[in-house]
Amino acid sequence: MIGYVSKRAQVHGIIMENAIILGRSVIGEETLIDNWVYVGYPIRRKLKHFPKKIEELDLISDGAKIGRGCVIRSFTVIYEGAELGDRVETGHGVLIRENSKIGSNSRIGSFSQLDGEVHVGENVNIQSMVYLPHLTWIDDDVFIGPNVTVTNDRYPVSRKLSGVKIRRGAIIGAEAVLIAGIEVGENSVIAAGSIVTKDVPANSMVIGAPARIKLSRMEYEERKKLYEAEENDTLG
Amino acid sequence: MIGYVSKRAQVHGIIMENAIILGRSVIGEETLIDNWVYVGYPIRRKLKHFPKKIEELDLISDGAKIGRGCVIRSFTVIYEGAELGDRVETGHGVLIRENSKIGSNSRIGSFSQLDGEVHVGENVNIQSMVYLPHLTWIDDDVFIGPNVTVTNDRYPVSRKLSGVKIRRGAIIGAEAVLIAGIEVGENSVIAAGSIVTKDVPANSMVIGAPARIKLSRMEYEERKKLYEAEENDTLG
Amino acid sequence: MIGYVSKRAQVHGIIMENAIILGRSVIGEETLIDNWVYVGYPIRRKLKHFPKKIEELDLISDGAKIGRGCVIRSFTVIYEGAELGDRVETGHGVLIRENSKIGSNSRIGSFSQLDGEVHVGENVNIQSMVYLPHLTWIDDDVFIGPNVTVTNDRYPVSRKLSGVKIRRGAIIGAEAVLIAGIEVGENSVIAAGSIVTKDVPANSMVIGAPARIKLSRMEYEERKKLYEAEENDTLG
Repeated sequence: MIGYVSKRAQVHGIIMENAIILGRSVIGEETLIDNWVYVGYPIRRKLKHFPKKIEELDLISDGAKIGRGCVIRSFTVIYEGAELGDRVETGHGVLIRENSKIGSNSRIGSFSQLDGEVHVGENVNIQSMVYLPHLTWIDDDVFIGPNVTVTNDRYPVSRKLSGVKIRRGAIIGAEAVLIAGIEVGENSVIAAGSIVTKDVPANSMVIGAPARIKLSRMEYEERKKLYEAEENDTLG
Repeated sequence: MIGYVSKRAQVHGIIMENAIILGRSVIGEETLIDNWVYVGYPIRRKLKHFPKKIEELDLISDGAKIGRGCVIRSFTVIYEGAELGDRVETGHGVLIRENSKIGSNSRIGSFSQLDGEVHVGENVNIQSMVYLPHLTWIDDDVFIGPNVTVTNDRYPVSRKLSGVKIRRGAIIGAEAVLIAGIEVGENSVIAAGSIVTKDVPANSMVIGAPARIKLSRMEYEERKKLYEAEENDTLG
Repeated sequence: MIGYVSKRAQVHGIIMENAIILGRSVIGEETLIDNWVYVGYPIRRKLKHFPKKIEELDLISDGAKIGRGCVIRSFTVIYEGAELGDRVETGHGVLIRENSKIGSNSRIGSFSQLDGEVHVGENVNIQSMVYLPHLTWIDDDVFIGPNVTVTNDRYPVSRKLSGVKIRRGAIIGAEAVLIAGIEVGENSVIAAGSIVTKDVPANSMVIGAPARIKLSRMEYEERKKLYEAEENDTLG
């Protein structure tokens, strides 16, 4: 065994030699599955059935669906039941758990995790090392900076999980923390490092711990224009 | 070479075809070692002996011990001298350095690190992307949220390392930072995003940067009950 | 295919059996490339040329240069155009993107990322899970604690990227956030968890969100000496 492609899989794209494709996975045309990638990884409960070799891992997997024109880079694990649209890209070491959905043209940065059933819309840009737990919902056109942490339990360890909702066009700055159950409104902006404990109104920019409104999105855009007009930076 | 199992290893569980098991490692019954996992990885000093192939990596490794009923998922590296109890589970991409101990029934989330000699008790739940440096000590029944960072040097870069101690039943919220040398008392709670710079008394809940006492554990539990009683959330 | 070494590569060190070395990569003497490592990974644009197997990935790669006496551990990906000096070490799961440079005797901790063109000087110690985006510049003798996040866009998502500069001898505490475009002055110290929004003068220590000057480096060193003089800690 080196790599492995299930006989039940429908492969229309390219699978590198060291990848493992399990179950009834579907891989779209012009999609590249890199070396050292798992597609269709079985959920926890099924591992208790105790697969003894790759053929048995394959047998217990329902497979994952990956659209056309995707790039899935090395060390990525995509669980069974996950569905990726067209032209989705993952960096290296991305974890996508069972039943997550990712819309077309979205990118997931290296070592980020969709750690449960997570919805990601279209044209979403998720940077590196982002943590999105079970029940997180992300609309289209959202940007999430590096190292952002989303939570799903307001009083851990409780019996109740509350997903965070991030509405269309929102921008989440690096290393922000979004507390369980909040909604980040359409086109709102969260400053880097903020801890967001309650709903963020649409078209506002918040900052701090706990995060409070500082600007409107329009004011934010004006400052952005001034910033962009300054002389460009060079490496060195 | 694809995978590799040392002749000196005692294997009672299942080793997937692409795993590498080095040295006198012991793998308990009903334990699953996934593809692309290293067990018994040699410490830094030994790599300077300059192993030229897998058989030589094997020769210099003392191996690791993994109990019964464990699941060690892909891209996990377990160093030599590490000992895992029974029914321990790791997510993907977990790093467990030399001489770390993990008690039975504990779970380590994906891409978390025990980066040195770390003690983890029984029934401990460590979520994803948690960083635990050399000398961290965690009692039984502790919960650690995603992206928590623990440190071991109060004035980096000093010659003195001071491990953080987390006592039984404590709960550490997402992306909290615990500064070197502090003790988190029994059953205390750290709010998400807090920076904890001094000891936290038992049965208290702290929040902020630097973290200060806000509630007792009993008051926290009352708020938790109210939260749990609210209507449940749905995805969407 | 198991591992793969390009015919165009110049290999003077040791390549473990499951590593992949692409393009005109140069691997120095007494350097160890561990299993499940990619050297010379092609940039994004080239993947659109749609390599169908490892030989085609090889053909489109310009390779990377790795000096003498380096250790590159498992699950590390080094892109084409990257250059590592002598005695550089990476932990597990390190990502080094195209055209990054790392000076001799520097170490990059497990699951850290140089996510774009990043300059790292000599004798730099970067701990685990650190995120360094495109245009980050790090002088010699810098220490960066675990989980630090550096950003490169002050008003995301803008058209202008501004690299952070970290000057010689600076110390960045765990989980600090450095906002795009700032300069961290020579020998300055950033406390753990700080959010640094503007330039930090040389020889000063800053703390908080936003970070403000609290001590001079000299005062910091005095406190460090007192700390080091306290009784040593033991595990338990």
